[in-house]
Amino acid sequence: MEATAQTESSTQFGLPNPGFFGVDHMQGASSSATNPSVRVVLQQCMGAQLMVQPATEGSEPQFVEIRRGVIVYICFLKGATKTLAEKMAKLALTVRLSESDDGKLVSVIDLPGDVLIIPQATLGGTVKGKVMQYHKNIAKDEGLQLYSEFVSVFRKTIEKNEKCATAGCVVRHGTYGNRQVFSCQTNGPYTHLIEL
Amino acid sequence: MEATAQTESSTQFGLPNPGFFGVDHMQGASSSATNPSVRVVLQQCMGAQLMVQPATEGSEPQFVEIRRGVIVYICFLKGATKTLAEKMAKLALTVRLSESDDGKLVSVIDLPGDVLIIPQATLGGTVKGKVMQYHKNIAKDEGLQLYSEFVSVFRKTIEKNEKCATAGCVVRHGTYGNRQVFSCQTNGPYTHLIEL
Repeated sequence: MEATAQTESSTQFGLPNPGFFGVDHMQGASSSATNPSVRVVLQQCMGAQLMVQPATEGSEPQFVEIRRGVIVYICFLKGATKTLAEKMAKLALTVRLSESDDGKLVSVIDLPGDVLIIPQATLGGTVKGKVMQYHKNIAKDEGLQLYSEFVSVFRKTIEKNEKCATAGCVVRHGTYGNRQVFSCQTNGPYTHLIEL
Repeated sequence: MEATAQTESSTQFGLPNPGFFGVDHMQGASSSATNPSVRVVLQQCMGAQLMVQPATEGSEPQFVEIRRGVIVYICFLKGATKTLAEKMAKLALTVRLSESDDGKLVSVIDLPGDVLIIPQATLGGTVKGKVMQYHKNIAKDEGLQLYSEFVSVFRKTIEKNEKCATAGCVVRHGTYGNRQVFSCQTNGPYTHLIEL
């Protein structure tokens, strides 16, 4: 019964290889932690563009872009630590959510693909009535520090990976605290939530 | 202290009107439920396009598109009910996350804006090792029924709202179970997670 349900679910998602999810039916580690301190939303993309510097008098806005790869929206909540930030970065780099040319799900490293990291403090919001409140978010200075460390793990990992280096993969990221003017093109975003 | 933190947080998000979040510092209703049965991710957009019918032999793929408004990624987990689906739809329609021309945060109804609903069963995933498992997702037939009801609330609300009707606002939605080939342009996605 369980196996049938799993196959149905995979079909439901339009995911390429149901069998890839394995046949381990034990309760998985929760990706929706009770009191999470690091939250990411991951989306697959064929390309994405992000403004990293708004236009100022006399200068055009500056953008970064990636090709095929993964978009990582990241939010740090109270209680987040460098250890958790690094753990989440490694998880985002190695979790198998990218569709390879032969239809298998692989990590973005094995794709190999680009990474676009978008600071997204709004992900820490809690709905109250008709408005969102952000009391659970970490203080801005702490968040900035963790964000830098988070980005650093991606950079180091992609740079030192031979397959990624050969393919010219890049890590791009938004400016912490800025408005994230953004566009993307996907072949199916496969949006996932992971919390630590 | 709290007020200062809140102002900093709002600046951190690049959100337009810090004061808009109010000064109620009571613990908000959790938007990250312990055992959620309905999960949405909301993003603001200036435009978005979604494939609703893949290409077949002899026919081009079919797309729907929206202009400025909100993108609603929706996932139903085990335990989801029609009541919760409708409650979530109403919440997504009325929560103040859309930036108006004068920089205030208003609901998508008050913007008034379009809505693009994207079924996204992958949002129900739980990370286990390097793969995602989807044991918590609702069965496909139940999910399809709830999805139809969810979409219906958006349609009815937008259609009968005078401001939306006058502005020609539309509700568009993806085909349940299909791959959601998708692109969007944002002026800041302000990504939010809400769970019921």
